[in-house]
This record gives sequence, C-alpha cells and structure tokens, in this order.
Amino acid sequence: MKKLTFDLLKTDDGGSKARAGVIHTERGDIETPIFMPVGTRATVRGVPERDLHNAGAQIILGNTYHLYLRPGNDVLISQGGLHKFASWPKPILTDSGGYQVFSLAKLRKLTADGVTFRSHIDGSSHFFTPESVIEAQRAIGSDIMMVLDECPPHPCEHIYAKNSNEITMKWAKRCQVAVENSEPLYGKHQALFPIVQGSVYKDLREYSAKTLVDMDFEGYAIGGLSVGEPIPLLYEFTDFTTDFLPKDKPRYLMGVGTPANLLEGIARGIDMFDCVMPTRNGRNATIFTRMGGMNIKNMRYINDPRPIDEACTCYACTTYSRSYIRHLFTVQEMLAPMLASIHNIHFYVEIMKEARKHILDGTWSAWYPGMAATVGGKMVDGQ
Amino acid sequence: MKKLTFDLLKTDDGGSKARAGVIHTERGDIETPIFMPVGTRATVRGVPERDLHNAGAQIILGNTYHLYLRPGNDVLISQGGLHKFASWPKPILTDSGGYQVFSLAKLRKLTADGVTFRSHIDGSSHFFTPESVIEAQRAIGSDIMMVLDECPPHPCEHIYAKNSNEITMKWAKRCQVAVENSEPLYGKHQALFPIVQGSVYKDLREYSAKTLVDMDFEGYAIGGLSVGEPIPLLYEFTDFTTDFLPKDKPRYLMGVGTPANLLEGIARGIDMFDCVMPTRNGRNATIFTRMGGMNIKNMRYINDPRPIDEACTCYACTTYSRSYIRHLFTVQEMLAPMLASIHNIHFYVEIMKEARKHILDGTWSAWYPGMAATVGGKMVDGQ
Repeated sequence: MKKLTFDLLKTDDGGSKARAGVIHTERGDIETPIFMPVGTRATVRGVPERDLHNAGAQIILGNTYHLYLRPGNDVLISQGGLHKFASWPKPILTDSGGYQVFSLAKLRKLTADGVTFRSHIDGSSHFFTPESVIEAQRAIGSDIMMVLDECPPHPCEHIYAKNSNEITMKWAKRCQVAVENSEPLYGKHQALFPIVQGSVYKDLREYSAKTLVDMDFEGYAIGGLSVGEPIPLLYEFTDFTTDFLPKDKPRYLMGVGTPANLLEGIARGIDMFDCVMPTRNGRNATIFTRMGGMNIKNMRYINDPRPIDEACTCYACTTYSRSYIRHLFTVQEMLAPMLASIHNIHFYVEIMKEARKHILDGTWSAWYPGMAATVGGKMVDGQ
Repeated sequence: MKKLTFDLLKTDDGGSKARAGVIHTERGDIETPIFMPVGTRATVRGVPERDLHNAGAQIILGNTYHLYLRPGNDVLISQGGLHKFASWPKPILTDSGGYQVFSLAKLRKLTADGVTFRSHIDGSSHFFTPESVIEAQRAIGSDIMMVLDECPPHPCEHIYAKNSNEITMKWAKRCQVAVENSEPLYGKHQALFPIVQGSVYKDLREYSAKTLVDMDFEGYAIGGLSVGEPIPLLYEFTDFTTDFLPKDKPRYLMGVGTPANLLEGIARGIDMFDCVMPTRNGRNATIFTRMGGMNIKNMRYINDPRPIDEACTCYACTTYSRSYIRHLFTVQEMLAPMLASIHNIHFYVEIMKEARKHILDGTWSAWYPGMAATVGGKMVDGQ
C-alpha cells in the first residue's frame, strides 16, 4: 500500500499564498485546490454519482458520526466499505464525527478518554474515543481519515479553547497510534489528517499547528472556523494558521463555505474545502452561478426559457430551463431540489478547476479578486 | 400536419385478443402495447427525462387539471408547449382534467355546460367546459388530447351512470367540434380520443362505445374502470368494451394498473396504459420485478449486495445495491424514492416491450399466464 503524497506544482507569485498541486492516493489523484461534495449519509443529498462524475468531482466526504449510526460499521464491512456501498470508486475523506457529536448529538459528556453521547435519531447511548472513530473509519475505508477533535464554539473563552485544544492534541496522538496499530480492511492505504484548533487565539493556533506538525501527518486540517465568527476573523485565522503548516502537505479548511470564502481561502494557502452549502441552499432554491446568486423561485423567471447558466455543462443546465425549474419548486416536485443541488455542486467543483487553472497559468492574482467579488456579491435577481 | 395513424401488426391467435401495433405521430412512433409513465405536473415524479429515455419510454402523460392550474396556459404557451418546457421531445398524451376535477377539486358543480370547481391548491374558482379543456390542451401541445368526461364512482346506480354517460357523450362531440374549430399552436397535429364510460352496465358501455365510434375518432379510451370495482369486473368490462371498438384504432385503458392488470388488459385487446403505481409505490419503497414485488425496506436486504434485479438495465440496478437503497430509505434520503421510481418505471416499460415481442413472435399465450401470475403474485420477500 502506498502512502498519500502531495506534489506542489505552483505557488502564486502575485502576492497571495494560492497553491496548485496534486494529491496522490491509491484510489486516484486529486487536483488541488479542490472542493469536496459532502455525502453525509453515504449520498450527496439529491446528487446521484453520475452527476458527481459529470461535475468532475475527484473526492467526496462522508460523515463518520452519521455512517456509524446508520448503516453502521457492520453493514459497511459486509458491503466492502463505503466506496462499494455508495458506488463511488474515487477517493473519500471522512470527518471523525467529533463535530456532529458536539453540534447534533444530545446529552454529550466529555472526558479525557472520549465523549459519551445520545444519538439524535433514537436517543441510544454511544461512546466515541480516538480509537473507536479510527475503527469506524476503517469500516468506512476512507482514503483520508480525520482525528477525533473537540470543536469549540464561537465565541469561547481563552481558557476553554486552551483546555479543549489540549484534549484535541492528545486525541490526535491517540488516533495516530490507533492507525499505526490497525490495518485497512480493503487493501488500500488510509491517510490520517489532524485538525488544528485554537478558536480565534493566535497563541493557541500556533501551538496547535506546531504540535501537530511535529507529529508528522500526511496532511493537515484547520477546524473551528466558520462556526459563527465574523468573516474577517475566518480569513485572518486561515491566513495565520497556514503559515505554520508544511508546504509539502495538503491543507484542508473544514466546513468552508461560500464560493467567495473558497477563493479567499485559496488565496490564504488552502488546498481542500468541503461544505453543505451547495446542496443545502440548492434545496431551498438558492443557486450559485459565476454571475452571482439566484433565487430560482423568483417571479422574474416564470417565463425565462434560458438555462440557469448557459455556460454550465451540468444536467440541469443542459436539459432544463429556469422557467421549468421554477415551476418544479412551485409545485414542490422532488426533481427541483435535485436539479438545484446538481447545478450547485457542479458550480463549486468547476470554480475550483478554474481557480487551479489560473494559479497554474500565473493569472490568479488578476482573476481572483473580481471573481470573489462577483460570486460573493449580491444575488443577480436582487433577492 | 399528419393525423395520428395506427398499424395493427399482429393479433394473437392463441385465444386472446392481444395485439401488437404501431401508433404513428408527428413526434415519433409508439410501439404498442405501451405503458405511458404519468408526468402529472410536467415531470414524472422522481424520474428525470434521461431515465425515461433509458427505460425506452416512447410517450408520457400530462395532467391537464394540474398543468392548467400550475404553471398555467400562459407559461406553457410562452415556453412553446409542454414538450419544450419538460424537455421531452417524444409524444405526450394529456387527460382532459375531468378525472381530477371529480376526485381532487373541491365544491364542484356539474351542469350540462361544464363543471365549476375550486382549486385544491388555493381554493380559487374555475370553470371547465369541453371547449376550455381543448384550449388548455392546445396550450400544452399534447400529441393525444382527451375529451372532457365525467367519471362515475363505483358503485353507482344505473340511472346515475346513464345520465352521466349522456353528458360525457355530448361533451365528446363538443370537444370534437372545438378541435375542428381550433389549430395546434406548435405546428404539430393533436389527435383527440374520447372516453367510453358506462360504469359496470353493459347496455351503457355498449351504447357509449357505439356512439363514440360513430363519431369517428383517431383512437378510443376506456374510462371509469379501476375506480374501486372488483378485479373480475375490471377484466370483464375491459373485455366487453373492446369488442365494440374498431380494430384499426388504438385502445387506451385509463389509469390501469398493476403489472398483472396490464398483461390481463393486453389479453383483452388493450394497446395503451397509464398508471401512477410505479412512481407512487416506488416512493413507498415497493418495487416491482419480474420475480414479484419487493419491499426494499425489509430487514432481509440490509446486507444484500445484489442489485434489485440483476437483469435490469435501469440506473438504480446498474449502479446501486439492495443494501444501499434500503439504507437510503432508512435515512430518508431523496435519492431513495428516485431510484425506486426509476426502477419501477423501467420495469413497467420493459414488461410491455416483452409482451409485444411475445405477441409478434406468436408466443404470447404460452408466456403471459405465467408472467401475469408471477408479477401479480406475492411479494418475493413475503411482505
């Protein structure tokens, strides 16, 4: 089995920290910067695998918390892991479940050993430890596993963030040991990424990053941002943290964000992103385009025969009109959220491809501020 | 513009009335017997057009009542009709809306002139006449339009069925005149089929059929069956009615039914069928196969890596396992009802193709009783 490796192909020389590279895994290469569609419960909601392929998605996300609860480790093992189960042969990254335990589960109790929680589905009691989340991710068979962490809320006191960070650092070590002491179940190497925490405290972020880098992982994630802090803080702490991460390893900013957030993240040295926005907003009729956002339920689209985006090659744009998709939302047909989600995922993946091309071509710094302003600007329909 | 024509290729000589033929329309040929997926609100629920094409669907249904209310005639006209709107270039048949007015709308009031009703959506008041439903179907641009009719419930008194039938006959004539006095909006001929009614009274069915045949339409529908009567009556009155219909015109049994009902309908001389069962049951995890029915939520499928049907070429069967689809239903992901609906539509279209092949090959009478017993029999999983 071959370890995960990263080739840094180019770093922007126009004043930003934007990078283009390739992550090599046993299930295929991942060209960075990359957006990873979120397949929470073994499916990217409303987006069949054929549309993920069509979008050019190279890696998707699974959520260990959700998959551990349903279908559970046993079913996943019986089916040969998540790749076969979900009919997705390309790379998969799984989070550790920590974030969901702290945001979704009930009656959680944190100790140095792990966290006890009750399932948000049926109230059943469960215990996650660094070792058990590795076991769950072995059952899943993800190409990139994440360590168990605690993700502090925003705002939080320095002392809370410091203590939380200590636990996260210890759990990262235990996860690393658990990985060393176990084997993949499906014959493919599974990398492990730790998560830099530390809230919006520079001393804690620096300590967290340095501690984890000393432990030598195959890539590094930044967590605990995009949790309610003002956008300038998101950008400031992304920028601050990447300075402490090795140049020859991929960097993953967890749970971020809008198309503009992604471009700003790239400019601050991030290679990998995931977010539920394209699917969650799609289900609510909010559509992302390179011209800005659209609320496709808007009355102005009632007779509009054009596709959402003439230049887009997704199934929704190559097949259906704005008028039709608006109608589907109006009558609450399930094809509506599907088409909007398919388009949004396509757009997110596409905008990353375009960003990569500009970085490689040396045109990033000329291109990105305008595009970030457009995709981060007003809705094109004024809604 | 060319009228709709029908070539009867072969009639079973093994003792049944099964027929194989071709309906020629300006938007393509329809090989009969045929199942027409129901696209109530301009979409076959949960089944994108790519999967209708993959199933080999040659014609789909639209519901005038629903389309008249939303998106409405104006939007349909602005978009160049339902074919362009729904991105479906092949033939479309529309019902007249009569059935929905009598089953779905509120506060309906029937007069000789037409029917006043309140929308089931917003309570707004509307008036359907034979002329207005033709106008609506002109806006839709369907290749086969249906006359406005009243569909009596089951059971109903002879006197009610007789009076209702008289209205339906008069409305059929007025629809025919309305078609003669109007033009298609999109340059393609639109055929008109009347509907034989008469409940389960042979004198009324005979009178209805003969009256309509005398009026000379391009095809004939049988309505008012599959409305709650016992199955033997459905079969008896289908058989009885087709004897009065011309051999050189297509015959459409409205709203029928299970896969077994379709095969029994073919044996009684029917060429065309529509039903919401494959999509409605699919949404509830009930799956049709040539081995019988399946409840895919059944615990027995939890670790089953096989597709629903190994021989099926639908997207669900060629991509995903029973275990995975069961999981999707368990976690209520929207991909679940989609995949089940895609498979069921594929199966319905496929079983008609198979029936047609057997009629043409002269093997119908040997094949159909066994297949009807299997697909009409128990669930394969004993549920």
